Amino acid sequence: MSILGSTGSVGRSTVDLLLRNPESFAVEALTAHRNAALLAEQARRLGARFAAIVDPAEYGALKDALAGSGIEAASGEAALIEAAERPADWVMAGIVGAAGLAPTLAAIRLGRIVALANKEVLVCAGSLFMQEVAAHKATLLPVDSEHNAIWQCFDFDRVEAIEKITLTCSGGPFRERRVDEMRGATVAEAVNHPTWNMGAKISIDSATLMNKGLEIIEAHYLFRLPSERIDVVIHPQSVIHGLVTYHDGSVLAHMGTPDMRTPIAYVLGWPGRTAAPMGRLDLAAVGRLTFEPPDPDRFPALRLAREALAAGGGTPTVLNAANEIAVHAFITGRIGFLDIAAIVEATLEALPAGPLGSLDDVHQIIPPRARIRDELSGTVCSRRRVVRRHLSAGADGPRLCSRARPLPDRAAQRRAHRGVLDRLRARVVRLV
Amino acid sequence: MSILGSTGSVGRSTVDLLLRNPESFAVEALTAHRNAALLAEQARRLGARFAAIVDPAEYGALKDALAGSGIEAASGEAALIEAAERPADWVMAGIVGAAGLAPTLAAIRLGRIVALANKEVLVCAGSLFMQEVAAHKATLLPVDSEHNAIWQCFDFDRVEAIEKITLTCSGGPFRERRVDEMRGATVAEAVNHPTWNMGAKISIDSATLMNKGLEIIEAHYLFRLPSERIDVVIHPQSVIHGLVTYHDGSVLAHMGTPDMRTPIAYVLGWPGRTAAPMGRLDLAAVGRLTFEPPDPDRFPALRLAREALAAGGGTPTVLNAANEIAVHAFITGRIGFLDIAAIVEATLEALPAGPLGSLDDVHQIIPPRARIRDELSGTVCSRRRVVRRHLSAGADGPRLCSRARPLPDRAAQRRAHRGVLDRLRARVVRLV
Repeated sequence: MSILGSTGSVGRSTVDLLLRNPESFAVEALTAHRNAALLAEQARRLGARFAAIVDPAEYGALKDALAGSGIEAASGEAALIEAAERPADWVMAGIVGAAGLAPTLAAIRLGRIVALANKEVLVCAGSLFMQEVAAHKATLLPVDSEHNAIWQCFDFDRVEAIEKITLTCSGGPFRERRVDEMRGATVAEAVNHPTWNMGAKISIDSATLMNKGLEIIEAHYLFRLPSERIDVVIHPQSVIHGLVTYHDGSVLAHMGTPDMRTPIAYVLGWPGRTAAPMGRLDLAAVGRLTFEPPDPDRFPALRLAREALAAGGGTPTVLNAANEIAVHAFITGRIGFLDIAAIVEATLEALPAGPLGSLDDVHQIIPPRARIRDELSGTVCSRRRVVRRHLSAGADGPRLCSRARPLPDRAAQRRAHRGVLDRLRARVVRLV
Repeated sequence: MSILGSTGSVGRSTVDLLLRNPESFAVEALTAHRNAALLAEQARRLGARFAAIVDPAEYGALKDALAGSGIEAASGEAALIEAAERPADWVMAGIVGAAGLAPTLAAIRLGRIVALANKEVLVCAGSLFMQEVAAHKATLLPVDSEHNAIWQCFDFDRVEAIEKITLTCSGGPFRERRVDEMRGATVAEAVNHPTWNMGAKISIDSATLMNKGLEIIEAHYLFRLPSERIDVVIHPQSVIHGLVTYHDGSVLAHMGTPDMRTPIAYVLGWPGRTAAPMGRLDLAAVGRLTFEPPDPDRFPALRLAREALAAGGGTPTVLNAANEIAVHAFITGRIGFLDIAAIVEATLEALPAGPLGSLDDVHQIIPPRARIRDELSGTVCSRRRVVRRHLSAGADGPRLCSRARPLPDRAAQRRAHRGVLDRLRARVVRLV
């Protein structure tokens, strides 16, 4: 087996489980972005054969740290692909963001069992990616806790008996906030997730519910169900992770303490199961599980994701790109919390996308992190070629962000917000 | 397929589902105890070939009602066995109580797929019965909602990965009652089950939690797990029916509205699924699920069932017999509610049983309904032969019911209570 992104959150949990079951697995390759010290330590402890660091500046540190171990060190994008392609039955695709697309695809094209922890792959390139999975007879195992939960309850041999699936959603930190309170929400409030401990981007996506919207898109490709058969229920305790409703009235659900090691252990052991050390669910101790419908007015992201999915083609890709830009703008204090969804909605209206032709197109729509930074500081990056190809003629012309509301009583933030909107608008004008 | 007990509660629900899926099933035989009119109607509507009525007095009525239909009519115990043995891949064992033992066994001995809705079979004769299932390569599908739920979540190919199973329990009508309130509980209060609509015996078993105790014994035989790996949690809403905990931290659960047609549809469709018409679970509408540990002081039945299971052999059979007698005594106003468990406990102390030698032994320990009536009105029925064979020498001699508490301030009930205890004690003295 190999782990792409072994020093990230999912990668570290995977390594933790492997070290507890040292006789069950043989590790071929590990990769990291730039944490050479941890990568080398993991490679030594797991007895890996190959360790790749993406950042060439860290190659020397990696090579030194592995000296005398017999473990081969390499660096750069090509080394990442090599790691994905080295002989392994099972590959953890644990690299987040667009950077994970190419190595994940490389493993898929060799027909591997791929544990997929990379949301972007399915959100941004779902149909293309699933075509590759089918063409190369690869196996995709979802690591995302909700999808992993549904996977465990989903009878792939009796799909005709499945009426719907349900993703649970904690509701995020603003579940009980009024709209006017949400408008002034700070980054610190938005990243304060009630049950899962995650990075800033995904925490903010959980606060807007865009994360659940993206998960609807993921679920659509993983389980081949239309949007209307993918339900969402707010469940603040995050004890039930996903449910499958069958046409005999049975609802199978996956429950557990919120610990990513459970889905990771499941994909590690699949089709069996691997022991994992976390505390077990004790329902009598939990005492109470609650459920409520999501509020479409305060959380428009779910509707936006469903609309993007219905539009198909490159629209989910655009949704994801607009969301990444908007979340970054929020994190850097340039727009308010409610503007995130407003910017996404305006972008979808201004940039209706046609079908995706190839994975290259996807790469050009996904905004790399560096470009987001440039974008927000006024630098122009041209995506004319791609967007022009995908754009249907919009009757109204560019109206990007016309619905975004300025922050009340925060003059500086309002000015920054306007600046972001102006630059985004300028980009759209050029693109159209 | 055939249905043994087609006019009972489970039988009627089975027929309801068959009539909704007329092209999926061919019905061979139906049986009933004495409801000839309904049996004939079911046989005609389902196009059955054979209809057996156990009560010979109803044979004429059945024959008349089936005249001209070409459906063969028969009556008596032999006809019941014939119904179980007629050519069918699938048999619903829907006859409750000891009367179901022989026909269920007949179907098992022909290697059929048997949907088991008869709790007594496993509680009273679990190990013997499972030996027959294995010897004849029969397949047993549990209909009891909790066991059916666990069955749906239980990976029989990965039993080593299963840590425990959990039966949920509504807690019954006395979940929040104090002991002194329970002492004076009436039959009407005890049969008022909060979520399931059932007969009097099982409703009272639900009020004492003996029903859950019997289900622990059932689960032990169905899933081959020791008592300490069969958990019980109180869950008043009865939405989650059963759970399986795996060693990766995953807990798979079966949920649904409390409607017996769901487990019946599942066993009908197994290994696929059959559509069933009841309302679907809507968690957002349910809003809240709660859980608490069972109170061992107010509800000693769970402990008694676990002790009987640990003792093994004929002890669960004695537990069930003592419970049937005690519940009947409660229903007829002869003892108080708390005396039910006290009588069972005293009986287990007085009658520790050895291993069961054969199913005949079981039949002689199970008190037939007629004998319970005789018992309580003072008639003596001898079970010396069987009990003597199973009895280990009790050092203390018979102490039956010494712990049973008299009802406070209810002189008449107290006198009746003493009378029952005296008669039970007399019986035990004779047996020992």
